[in-house]
Amino acid sequence: MLAVAILAAGKGTRMKSNIPKVLHRLGSETLVERVLNSCEIVNPDRKIVIVGYQAENVQKSLSHLNRVKFVEQKEQLGTGHAIQQLIPHLHDFQGDLLVLNGDVPLLRPETIQKLVITHQHHQNAATLLTANLPNPRGYGRVFCDGNNLVTQIVEDRDCNSAQQQNPRINAGVYCFNWQALLKALPKLSTNNDQQEYYLTEVVDYLNPVMALDVDDYLEITGINDRRQLAVAYDILQARVKESWMVAGVTMIDPDSITIDETVKLSPDVIIEPQTHLRGNTIIGSGCHIGPGTMIENTKLGDNVQVLYSVLTDSEVASNTRIGPYSHLRGNVTVGESCRIGNFVEIKKTTIGNKTNVAHLAYLGDATLAERVNVGAGTITANYDGIKKHPTYIGKGTKTGANSVFVAPVNIGEDVTIAAGSVVTSDAPDQCLVIAREKQRIIEGWNEKSS
Amino acid sequence: MLAVAILAAGKGTRMKSNIPKVLHRLGSETLVERVLNSCEIVNPDRKIVIVGYQAENVQKSLSHLNRVKFVEQKEQLGTGHAIQQLIPHLHDFQGDLLVLNGDVPLLRPETIQKLVITHQHHQNAATLLTANLPNPRGYGRVFCDGNNLVTQIVEDRDCNSAQQQNPRINAGVYCFNWQALLKALPKLSTNNDQQEYYLTEVVDYLNPVMALDVDDYLEITGINDRRQLAVAYDILQARVKESWMVAGVTMIDPDSITIDETVKLSPDVIIEPQTHLRGNTIIGSGCHIGPGTMIENTKLGDNVQVLYSVLTDSEVASNTRIGPYSHLRGNVTVGESCRIGNFVEIKKTTIGNKTNVAHLAYLGDATLAERVNVGAGTITANYDGIKKHPTYIGKGTKTGANSVFVAPVNIGEDVTIAAGSVVTSDAPDQCLVIAREKQRIIEGWNEKSS
Amino acid sequence: MLAVAILAAGKGTRMKSNIPKVLHRLGSETLVERVLNSCEIVNPDRKIVIVGYQAENVQKSLSHLNRVKFVEQKEQLGTGHAIQQLIPHLHDFQGDLLVLNGDVPLLRPETIQKLVITHQHHQNAATLLTANLPNPRGYGRVFCDGNNLVTQIVEDRDCNSAQQQNPRINAGVYCFNWQALLKALPKLSTNNDQQEYYLTEVVDYLNPVMALDVDDYLEITGINDRRQLAVAYDILQARVKESWMVAGVTMIDPDSITIDETVKLSPDVIIEPQTHLRGNTIIGSGCHIGPGTMIENTKLGDNVQVLYSVLTDSEVASNTRIGPYSHLRGNVTVGESCRIGNFVEIKKTTIGNKTNVAHLAYLGDATLAERVNVGAGTITANYDGIKKHPTYIGKGTKTGANSVFVAPVNIGEDVTIAAGSVVTSDAPDQCLVIAREKQRIIEGWNEKSS
Repeated sequence: MLAVAILAAGKGTRMKSNIPKVLHRLGSETLVERVLNSCEIVNPDRKIVIVGYQAENVQKSLSHLNRVKFVEQKEQLGTGHAIQQLIPHLHDFQGDLLVLNGDVPLLRPETIQKLVITHQHHQNAATLLTANLPNPRGYGRVFCDGNNLVTQIVEDRDCNSAQQQNPRINAGVYCFNWQALLKALPKLSTNNDQQEYYLTEVVDYLNPVMALDVDDYLEITGINDRRQLAVAYDILQARVKESWMVAGVTMIDPDSITIDETVKLSPDVIIEPQTHLRGNTIIGSGCHIGPGTMIENTKLGDNVQVLYSVLTDSEVASNTRIGPYSHLRGNVTVGESCRIGNFVEIKKTTIGNKTNVAHLAYLGDATLAERVNVGAGTITANYDGIKKHPTYIGKGTKTGANSVFVAPVNIGEDVTIAAGSVVTSDAPDQCLVIAREKQRIIEGWNEKSS
Repeated sequence: MLAVAILAAGKGTRMKSNIPKVLHRLGSETLVERVLNSCEIVNPDRKIVIVGYQAENVQKSLSHLNRVKFVEQKEQLGTGHAIQQLIPHLHDFQGDLLVLNGDVPLLRPETIQKLVITHQHHQNAATLLTANLPNPRGYGRVFCDGNNLVTQIVEDRDCNSAQQQNPRINAGVYCFNWQALLKALPKLSTNNDQQEYYLTEVVDYLNPVMALDVDDYLEITGINDRRQLAVAYDILQARVKESWMVAGVTMIDPDSITIDETVKLSPDVIIEPQTHLRGNTIIGSGCHIGPGTMIENTKLGDNVQVLYSVLTDSEVASNTRIGPYSHLRGNVTVGESCRIGNFVEIKKTTIGNKTNVAHLAYLGDATLAERVNVGAGTITANYDGIKKHPTYIGKGTKTGANSVFVAPVNIGEDVTIAAGSVVTSDAPDQCLVIAREKQRIIEGWNEKSS
Repeated sequence: MLAVAILAAGKGTRMKSNIPKVLHRLGSETLVERVLNSCEIVNPDRKIVIVGYQAENVQKSLSHLNRVKFVEQKEQLGTGHAIQQLIPHLHDFQGDLLVLNGDVPLLRPETIQKLVITHQHHQNAATLLTANLPNPRGYGRVFCDGNNLVTQIVEDRDCNSAQQQNPRINAGVYCFNWQALLKALPKLSTNNDQQEYYLTEVVDYLNPVMALDVDDYLEITGINDRRQLAVAYDILQARVKESWMVAGVTMIDPDSITIDETVKLSPDVIIEPQTHLRGNTIIGSGCHIGPGTMIENTKLGDNVQVLYSVLTDSEVASNTRIGPYSHLRGNVTVGESCRIGNFVEIKKTTIGNKTNVAHLAYLGDATLAERVNVGAGTITANYDGIKKHPTYIGKGTKTGANSVFVAPVNIGEDVTIAAGSVVTSDAPDQCLVIAREKQRIIEGWNEKSS
């Protein structure tokens, strides 16, 4: 049996924020959500988030996750005090307790797994994660024997000059035998500078305690202010982008690109500078994306080109070209070999194969069949001030420049809509729809006559 | 009494420019303007800029600043020669002279203040700013006794190998007792490689001369070419962004963001990548800005969202959403909870609360009341070829798609403008305005018949 | 006589790509194209590309280059095997053979020249390029006598600990006396880990063999995966941008800017962040480009401003302002002192001096004379579904908001086109063209009545 407790009660004063530290986002997830997700790999039987500052908001933010229990730490009297709050909730629990920090979001699942496996394999009373820092100043140093069994943990301020040379620090991540911990928790004192109950102190009452080094010390980066939040995002992005480059994605100026971990790319995708891929985005082979593009929760087929555009919650089939300056949002489906671009906004619309919407158009709540040519300046007037109405345009139809479709309206196949027409009623196949005044010329006109 | 002299006479040959070096911009200010502003902290009684190359242009560029005197150095014969030009202008002056370089723009006001206070506290004949460089090669080294009194300044080429190890260099920034300096200036020689009069030489004739180390050696970064200009901008931006992150602003990829020092942000602002904030921009709490956004001289209320847009000289109230691809410029005022976006340009226009201008519109010289809905493709024809005219649209009015308002024109409240209408005259409250031909259908039409 | 052989037969498995490694692009050129171009400086009499994996595609990609011969290496059995394939093709050749790698694209032409000159000056049997790496691990180390004559090359795995300290590595770039090499090539064995024929082995059979150090070890950066491709692009861009900054171009945040080597800039150009200049782009003095701009194969005069726009295959004369959000593509010519911007797309169009196309317009296949004012929402309906037709607009003409020109159509000088007009036939000079219904007002209208 394994329980996980995540320390998430602090305010995070140095964030200078109205929201609790653990609710700040790192990419697509909040800090605490990320920590919760990272421990799924060890299949915890119980998941407990220890909340305090704005407890209700933290709880609400995690309400979409299953089987998470919340324990309130009303006053924040230290990490030891936080874990003491678990006693009534885990009185019957037999097994191990993994303690993670809600503001240490970069710990890899593999590292958590290794910690638990090491702990259980050696039947330790406690196993703690350690890291070898290039600059360990400020951290408690961990001293071990040859078997990685902890002999001493010395706070930085108590280190003599020889001890200061030890780069191995306590990362504050633990796996405990719960029953052993239960006996140690009541012994904690506030006999320290901050007059807080430190969880570290339990190490004195447990045996054996083993240390496990994390492979990459960047994993234990904690977030205390917005600079560290920015640094953590950088570390995370470097991981994500490196792994996609190894997998066959070309990135031009990767430093300027951001990619959520939830995104899926294919080999031979080319990503140009200043491109941002977010959420559940899936991009097919041979796509050429950017520069200056943001794609969120959108699926692209193969060989799609997107230039200086914003795509959200949409789907685009293969060989279609989009942009520059297109905005697809809210459930748009575009077929194969289409051309969408140049100041075109499309919302909640389905577009057939080989259809072009190339200039200055707004399509909302519309369905366009195959091989439609949408003229520049075409607009679907889908909103009557109260509700939205649909427009249907049949295959092979051509809409004239600056034409308007006042929805609801159905247009047949191979229809020609004259430029400047406001289309208010349905039209059958193969007709001309025209709704405009004839051109007149008034000669001898100049600025003075106007 | 304190006088400040800023050396700004050089051409800056390595800038390869048609404008003098000190007129190149670093963010929102020219180099020389920045240096002038940085010494305001010490309230100088006299401010003198020593000009030479393109003297008139340098003078003109600073004409908006108060109480700045210009002294011309007709030939550029060295820093000592430059200061010699002050003699006729300061013959009556009693007090201290602070000497700054027009091409060393990153010196913090606090450093300048500390230099002046140190100088005055110790009643030095001269106090010079020094820096400890990681790589001091090429700079004159400053040697001091235990009280920071300068014993020797040795040019790099004259250093023996022990002296070369001294990382303390002369930053070329001085505070002098003017009357003492006045006696020393005539003694300067051109007995050196460049055959120039070096200000450094006066140190030999003054006593006591004290050195003061700058805390951060990056402050003394000088600009000689465009690479150094880019590096200086980087240093400046790192300062600005770091200080806003500490103050509670989230930045995603801060390296890709630029923020002028004149900008004011609030806690819990989120700035996305590739965002540029310039001039007198003020951004309220909870705003979410970018990616790909430029905001200049614009005030945003709280919780405003701006995505891929350009805003200049405007004001946007709280909870309004802007973009992608909006351009607000030249005195636009947008109310609360509005929706502006998708290929919308607005100029010199006031927009009431809860009004939407969501797609493909141009509004110029217009006033829109509350709860107006501007249809896609709506345009104010504000320009008759000679002058601009106003458009007024009353509250609750809805403009149809591709409608045009030929200004001057006044539209009442709760009016409906039919799609495709050209509105040329005023309309009362609660009417329908329609100006279009009825739709006709010509059957049996196809491409051949057109 | 000099022959060049470029090794370009490998697949590049770690690229995880459907295209051969040497066909990946680094900026404006493929890797192999770049290597071919870099050796033009030595005027090779013969240029041979050794192809293997997707030989046909590699050959096709270089078909635009003159006098390149292809030799196929059917199996990839090592670099020595690759060069053995040249034997039948160069049996008559007297002179030197320069061997370059198709996946080492950053070697400077000057380095190649120096290698050839050194080789020929000393009449070496072979001259090999070496580099001193900060971290030489993994590379074969080159040991020389005091005259740079190679005494030994030791593979990394065979180095003793003293030999491991030698930072001088074999860059895999050689100049050979071909007749000497011809005798050595048959002696190669596959007596090694990989069981391949290594070209390095010929060094054992030749004398004298000289080493030449490359000045900048970054030049020998090889590409094996997409991370290295990104790093190589970074190195290349740093070179290009540094050289333009030295030449008098201001760059704000140069790290965010990319500039193809083919681009030509002038002094006092200012390039804002996130700007990308590609292909045969030429930018005149005083231009201010960006942020967020991409310019490809386009020539700008002096003092042109371009903000958040995309320009391709076009030409813009001096003092014109473009953007934000303009797209010029495919043979657009814009005159002096024009204003193009705010959601304007222009294609295959010529625009006279002082003409404005300032908002929400599409111009295709059009010619606009001087001082035309194109109203917001103006569209040329240039496409009838079958072919494109021209529009001509004479000087001083003003087009109304949301007007449409149904091409082919000719409009005279100083014509006024009324807002909302669809212009279907020609108009003489100084007339008013109007094609719209009169405005009607239906009072007492509200949402319920619609």
